[in-house]
Formats: sequence, structure tokens, C-alpha cells
Amino acid sequence: MLQAALRSGAAHRRAVFEVFARHLPGGRRYGVVAGTGRVLDQLERFRFGDEELTYLREHHVVDDSTLAFLADYRFSGNVYGYREGDVYFPASPIMVVEGTFAEAVLLETVTLSILNHDCAIASAASRMTNAAGKRPIIEMGSRRTHEAAAVAAARAAYIAGFASTSNLMAGHLYGVPTAGTAAHAFTLLHDSERVAFEAQIATLGPETTLLVDTYDVAEAVRTAVALAGPKLGAVRIDSGDLAAAAQEVREQLDALGAFDTRILVTSDLDEYAIAALAAAPVDGYGVGTSLVTGSGVPTAALVYKLVARETAGGKLQPVAKRSVGKPSRGGRKEAYRLLDESGRLETELITTGGRVPEGGIPLLHELVRDGEVVGREPLDAARERHAATVAALPQEALHLGRGYAAIPTEFV
Amino acid sequence: MLQAALRSGAAHRRAVFEVFARHLPGGRRYGVVAGTGRVLDQLERFRFGDEELTYLREHHVVDDSTLAFLADYRFSGNVYGYREGDVYFPASPIMVVEGTFAEAVLLETVTLSILNHDCAIASAASRMTNAAGKRPIIEMGSRRTHEAAAVAAARAAYIAGFASTSNLMAGHLYGVPTAGTAAHAFTLLHDSERVAFEAQIATLGPETTLLVDTYDVAEAVRTAVALAGPKLGAVRIDSGDLAAAAQEVREQLDALGAFDTRILVTSDLDEYAIAALAAAPVDGYGVGTSLVTGSGVPTAALVYKLVARETAGGKLQPVAKRSVGKPSRGGRKEAYRLLDESGRLETELITTGGRVPEGGIPLLHELVRDGEVVGREPLDAARERHAATVAALPQEALHLGRGYAAIPTEFV
Repeated sequence: MLQAALRSGAAHRRAVFEVFARHLPGGRRYGVVAGTGRVLDQLERFRFGDEELTYLREHHVVDDSTLAFLADYRFSGNVYGYREGDVYFPASPIMVVEGTFAEAVLLETVTLSILNHDCAIASAASRMTNAAGKRPIIEMGSRRTHEAAAVAAARAAYIAGFASTSNLMAGHLYGVPTAGTAAHAFTLLHDSERVAFEAQIATLGPETTLLVDTYDVAEAVRTAVALAGPKLGAVRIDSGDLAAAAQEVREQLDALGAFDTRILVTSDLDEYAIAALAAAPVDGYGVGTSLVTGSGVPTAALVYKLVARETAGGKLQPVAKRSVGKPSRGGRKEAYRLLDESGRLETELITTGGRVPEGGIPLLHELVRDGEVVGREPLDAARERHAATVAALPQEALHLGRGYAAIPTEFV
Repeated sequence: MLQAALRSGAAHRRAVFEVFARHLPGGRRYGVVAGTGRVLDQLERFRFGDEELTYLREHHVVDDSTLAFLADYRFSGNVYGYREGDVYFPASPIMVVEGTFAEAVLLETVTLSILNHDCAIASAASRMTNAAGKRPIIEMGSRRTHEAAAVAAARAAYIAGFASTSNLMAGHLYGVPTAGTAAHAFTLLHDSERVAFEAQIATLGPETTLLVDTYDVAEAVRTAVALAGPKLGAVRIDSGDLAAAAQEVREQLDALGAFDTRILVTSDLDEYAIAALAAAPVDGYGVGTSLVTGSGVPTAALVYKLVARETAGGKLQPVAKRSVGKPSRGGRKEAYRLLDESGRLETELITTGGRVPEGGIPLLHELVRDGEVVGREPLDAARERHAATVAALPQEALHLGRGYAAIPTEFV
């Protein structure tokens, strides 16, 4: 495609691509923007090195003039986007890429890969943190997804309110707080549960979290408190009826005087299971599989579409395909959000032609100017924005059942 | 966990971990082993460098003696596994890792991440290639999953019978054949569909694949054949009722004399949609989202469990947890497959204690010996094995509906 466009000359036309979702899959009521920072990281290092060029040449994937173009490739255009942690709705243009066709079309796959993955994870994570209320959630899903996706998932979950992750690489690369507990293998490794607990307490202190369901839960809790004393940090339950087990363990801990020992539960939790545990004496959750797989929605259905390009006469012209069932709206968009009197989100307003609606909060921010990243921000800014934005959503947005977008998208 | 085990001394006990699935999620009838080669690649380079060690030190994640252990870390044990492309069933020990507890437990996350992802993708891909019969499928899902997962997905899909991938990195790293078609943006970029088609044919020859649903399909097909002649390679339809559209386009192509021009269809295809197109005049499929998300089963539910470890007396002892609903079977396993008289798969036999069943085909092969990779094989060997193994499955294994494992797993 690039090679044909270089040959026809159209590759050098100015072009505008937009990233948006035609719908929110899975009956979700809002989407969460995540991955923007990772797009900027990748865009900065998006080059074709000798190794890639040699592959393309030796396998005759592209011709010599295309190889020459790729060898010099460096994105020199502009990117605008919704801020990370913000929410989005159907048709929200969460990212806008302006450049020549050639330089912008090359970014399609990496941009969509990052945003489709990270937005899907953050959108699921947001439902889980809402369901958990003030109780913290540890992200524990690394083993259930691709080894690199795991790091990105931990980052996205943190934006959407997870307290920490067991993925140390996410701590290293992105500063996500890390946490972890022992596995059953640690208990099984030792000659007895008592010996295992003794080893863990000796190393990590009584404030550690002991896993109590390898053999008999009640006996493990007795042993745990006997060894660590009432200052035992937490126990983890990973099997059985978690609500009933938590109730029994809470009563046992209280009877043993361990009033401050917390109860952490894990075991295939998702937002529904978390919500169902609201009345149980649980102090925190560990979530794995359902987080890293987007809890039923593993990809965000975002597309990257050409919406305007230069004509032979040098003017920027809106373009749109007419494919059955998949229409796109031509023209470079701007996006604004209207709030009601109490400050709650009311309408997502998409405009073309430069009209600025009164009272509308602009949603597109400059991220890249002439190829230079200018819109980077700390991860905690995204996390705080997300919490504030979710707090301002209409109440029905937080219902876990399938539904429609929480606010309407209007086109002006 | 590692730090506590180093302190208790148990970290240096010999240990055996096994990778297996308690069940096949999604009502699948068989699983496909994929990712073994990637596990070997990652295991070879699994080290803790200065950057990682500095992070762990500065954030007080582990103590100095653990840092010293990690700095010297190099897996020195043995790994056995099912061959890539083979099938598996509930409890099949698809990988066995032997080493000290410390060195083997550190490989849990990377091993499971790779196998859970790649086996999920390959298991979905296998259903799609069965549904497609002799028609080739191009893997086109890169934009719908994490940017690194995309490369692994293309590799896994190829093992399970996909013909090619649009992911060039998978071509470069793994030798997967690559293919691609133009996007709607290419047509929209040009002043007319005719100009776009002319540019593509001038660059890639008449044997290229033209995308015909940007505006009006019938008009696009007329234009395509007028420009490329009857030697036009293929047309791609990406919207509408694909069966009806393919029928109309086939009749139109034949009427225009383009009898050999193939029809490629894309648009949210999965194994069910592919099966539903069996009677339509379609020559190939492009599959994206459903492939990279495992078609409803994005992770394979594989676990990595300690099944045996050294006692204080130096003997290897089976161990198993007793958690409610998640029991594990202690002891180092061997796995054999029994075939019926016609050569079809009949039983998956799991043994402990070294018994070798008569006529059983051993399924575990040596992959790593004393830390050195010895079991690497070309990707095409895995692909050929997969095709041969699927051909020998009982017929009902290929039903697309939910069901039970195609053959029973027996324990001896």
C-alpha cells in the first residue's frame, strides 16, 4: 500500500487519521483511555533499522524506493488525543494523527495495538475498582496473558484505580506500586505449613500476607496467628466459597485477637464476583485472569480511519468510505464535553469545521508537535483524572449489567 | 517467596513443576500446544541485569542475599514438554520443569504467560483452519492485540494452519509467510477508486488483491477487471452479507471473463462465520480480532504447579495442595497417547512412577538438559505435526459447538 502510494505520488499528500470506536463492545457504558503514554514512547522510537530493512529487501516485500523511504522514516507530524484516564464513548476521536499519508499510515498498527489492548484492560479495571469501592485490588494477571502484554496490563489497571501489581517490570518501567503474596508452592516446598509460615515471617516480618488454603484453612489461620501474633498483616484465601470462607476466617481471627489482620481474597475474581463480596468481611482483592483478558472484552474495537486528505489542488478534503454497516464520518473532528449544572457529564460533542461550543470542555490535547513529543505526563496524573472523571459520570454509568453509552454522543 | 525460601534453605531443594490445564475453557474439545519454542528462547536469555537489579535494590523489593542469587541466576535444570503443534487435554502435563525450587519457581510467570497466550491462540486458530477446509486463511489481527502479542499470535496461528500473516515482524523473527491487502484508506487517499486501483496494479501487477467495497462493490469490480484484465489476482470484500456479496461478485467476475480471480473475504470472521461461508464462492479468508483474542477464550487456563520436591533426607517426594475445587495431583508425571486400530487418538494416559504403557506413544520430549536448550525445532515441523495430529483426532473433536474433551485422560 505504501509502495503503491509512493509510486502514485499520493503518499506525500497531507492526511488526517482518527482513532475511535464505532461502539462500546460488551454492552459497556463507557470506555477508558489508556495507552497514550505508550503510544508516545513507541512513536519516538519508531524507526526501520538495518535488520528490518534487510528482511524486507531479502524477502522482496517492498521495492528499493520504498526501502529508501523507510530507512529515512521519522514521524514529523502532529498528534492530538484524549488524556489518559479520561473516558470515551462511541465515536469519540480519542487520537488524531496528522502528517503525510505515508508517515501517518505506518503508525496505524502500533497505535491501534496499544490503544485496543490498553483501553480494553483499563475499561475492565475501572468496573472492578468501582465494584471494590474503597477496598484495594492487586493486579495479579501476568501469568494469564502474553509476557509483554502483562506489563502494559499492569500499567492500564493502575490508571483505572488498581492499587498495585505483582508485575515487577511494571514497577520498574512505569513506577506502578508492586505487591505480592506467597504461592501454594512455597508451602508445599517446606516440610510443613508451620515451617513455611515461620520462614516467611522470619524474612518478611509479621506484617506479611500468609496463604492459608493449601491444606486446612482453620488450622492454617491458627498456625499463622500463633506464629505471627495479632500483628499478622493479612491472610489470603484462594479457593472455596470466598464469602463464607472470609466470614469464618474473620470470626476466627477476631477470636484469636487478630482484629487488625486483613483478609485478602483471590480466585478467578471479576467485577461481578467483587460486587458479590461487598458484604463479606474482605479487605482486599487480587485479580488476575479477568483483568488481563478485559473481563469478556479483550480488545476495544478501536479503528484508525483516514478522515481527510489533501487534494491535487493542495486543499484538505474530508473523505469517508461507504461500506455497508461500517460507515465513517469524514472530516477532522474536535471533541468537547458538556457538563450539567452539578458538574456531571452530560454530552460528548463532536464537531467539524472549527466550531467551539459554549461551555464545552475540549478533550483533544496536543501530544506530538512536528514529530516531537510534547504531551507526556506522569502516570499518576492519568490515575487521578480517571478517578475524578468516573466520580462525575451519571450514576447509571456504574451499573455492571449490559447497557448503552452513559452519555450521548452528538455531532455538530 | 524466593527470599524466604533462600533464608529457610528450602530454595535449594530439587523441585518438579508441571504445566497443565485443569479443564479446556470454552467447551473446547482439544487444546493446541504452542509457544514451546518461545519458552526456550526466553529461558535462554532469562537473566537479571544491572538495570533490573538496581530497581529491585532501590525499591527494597528483596534483600542483598536474594539480589546476589538473582545476579548469578542461570537456569541449570531440565525441561521436558509436549511438542509444539501437538494437542492436549485436561491434565496433560504439557511442560515439566526440573531444577532447584529457586531456579524453577522464577520461570513460572514467563512460562505460563507464553503458553497461556500462544496455546489459546493456536487452539482458536485450529478450529478456524478446520472450518476453512482447503481455503487459506491470512492472519490479520495485529491491530487488535498488544503489539508484542501480535507477533506471537501470528506464529501460533501459523502452527495451527493459517497460511500467512500480515505481521511482517512474524515473518522476520519466525519465518511465517507474509501477505497483505490494501486498506480503504488507500482508495480514499486517491482522487478516485480508479486512480487508486491503477496505482496498485502499476506497482504490484495484475495479480494483486484489490479492495472493492469502499464505495459501490459492483462498480469497483467492473473497474478492477477493466484495469487489471482477467488475470486480476483477487478482490477483497470487507462488509455486508459476505455470502451474498461473494455470490454476486463471483457471477460478475465470471461474466467479465475473470474466472481465475479469487475472492477474499474479511470482516470480523471467526470459526462459525467461516463455517457458514463453506457453500459460498469464497477462495480465502482474512481473520483478525477473533484470532488474536482466542475466539472467546483469550487465555488457556494453564497452571504451573509444584508436584514434587526434595525432602530433608534428599528424596524426591510428591506434593499436592488440597484447596477446595482446585486439587492437584502430586508426583512427576509421564504422558503417553494410545491410538485405536485405525490410528486415531483414543486415550491420553498419565503415569507416575515410571510405568511405560504398552503401545503408548511418549508425549514428553527433552527440551532443556542441564540448562542447555536441546529440543529446538523448525516452526514448520510444528505446523506439520499439528495437521497430522488433527487429522487423527476422533471426528467429533472437530465439532465447533461446546463439548467435552475429545478423548479421555486416564491416570495410571
